[in-house]
Amino acid sequence: MLTLFGNVESGNVHKVQMVFSRLGLPFRRVDVRQDLGQPRDARFLTINPMGKVPAVRFPDGDVLSDSGAILFYFALQTPLWPEPRRDQAEVLRWMFFEQYSHEPALAVLRYLKRFTPDPGAHQSRIADLVSKSTFALGVLEKRLAQAEWIAGPAPTIADYALYPYTRWMNEVGFSHDDWPAISLWMRRVEKLPRFLPLYTDAAREVIAFADYFATPQL
Amino acid sequence: MLTLFGNVESGNVHKVQMVFSRLGLPFRRVDVRQDLGQPRDARFLTINPMGKVPAVRFPDGDVLSDSGAILFYFALQTPLWPEPRRDQAEVLRWMFFEQYSHEPALAVLRYLKRFTPDPGAHQSRIADLVSKSTFALGVLEKRLAQAEWIAGPAPTIADYALYPYTRWMNEVGFSHDDWPAISLWMRRVEKLPRFLPLYTDAAREVIAFADYFATPQL
Repeated sequence: MLTLFGNVESGNVHKVQMVFSRLGLPFRRVDVRQDLGQPRDARFLTINPMGKVPAVRFPDGDVLSDSGAILFYFALQTPLWPEPRRDQAEVLRWMFFEQYSHEPALAVLRYLKRFTPDPGAHQSRIADLVSKSTFALGVLEKRLAQAEWIAGPAPTIADYALYPYTRWMNEVGFSHDDWPAISLWMRRVEKLPRFLPLYTDAAREVIAFADYFATPQL
Repeated sequence: MLTLFGNVESGNVHKVQMVFSRLGLPFRRVDVRQDLGQPRDARFLTINPMGKVPAVRFPDGDVLSDSGAILFYFALQTPLWPEPRRDQAEVLRWMFFEQYSHEPALAVLRYLKRFTPDPGAHQSRIADLVSKSTFALGVLEKRLAQAEWIAGPAPTIADYALYPYTRWMNEVGFSHDDWPAISLWMRRVEKLPRFLPLYTDAAREVIAFADYFATPQL
């Protein structure tokens, strides 16, 4: 069985859970807690030297990390990865946009406002991230006012990549009501087969970090 | 002919120039200057609503933006994109690493230290970016101590994606001498066919921003 490393509060991990759920892939999850710094723990760096979740371990011991690379790998030869070369490039274009311009604004804003003890100590950084988040959401709103899905005529892994941190905009001070095209798109995503809501878990089994590394199993 | 939008001081644009040079693709370049804010100029937003360079316009008017998506598109069915699915995922894994963990540290550090009037005003941000850059270079050094190329047994677009901002580490206070495996890898990249050095241009023709938008041509 596949082993997914990551926590349910991470949107990057949730993307992988959503796609595994959609594709019906069974997996277990090792809980790697970001609030305890576990992605940079020496034990985890033996799994992923990049020090980040998610990572997926295959039954033969091979490890693939990075949400975008994982989504690509499992989506190949499924309807979530289109056939024409230009359409494939468009999927990656939006996935790179998410990792470069969208997630570093919305996810970091969420981290500072929800998971740090004193958000007031980060006011100028928060103001900068609100501005960047507004721009990123504006790019999405404009795209989704013209098209049902992010990267082409049908849903792809780009939709799954963009869903979690976009949906969580209401945790960081944005209102879904202000982004009508995005809101309609989120409802379409939520009606896709085997949709997995945020903060829920599709894993067959969950293993605590210390337990996994006490007796590593493939 | 292809039209590339971007400036020669941008590593993200240079990646595309390097791959176009390697593949022998003729193109012209519209100079979009970041120091003048031209990527967010309303005229450029009609080309790329994401407000970023590079972007490539095809002769039929279609536009593809994002360095990673552009590299993928043009590398398909060339030796720069491997055949096995797992190797392809590995290429993307390193390209996402570059855009998420490497470029936002090294390129932003370079911007603050080289292209802002008063770097002294950004001391705490610079300290944070030095720490993140050191971690990213450490990940690369570790990988390249074990392998000749970034993402597999042969050079791929991941090598081109990681070259510019890694090579520019000496512009932001790092010394190539401290990273021996990275330095050997850079020399290997520089010996690849039709290698294009930083700050040089492979375009057949260069068009100024205002001139292009005065009389747009495909």
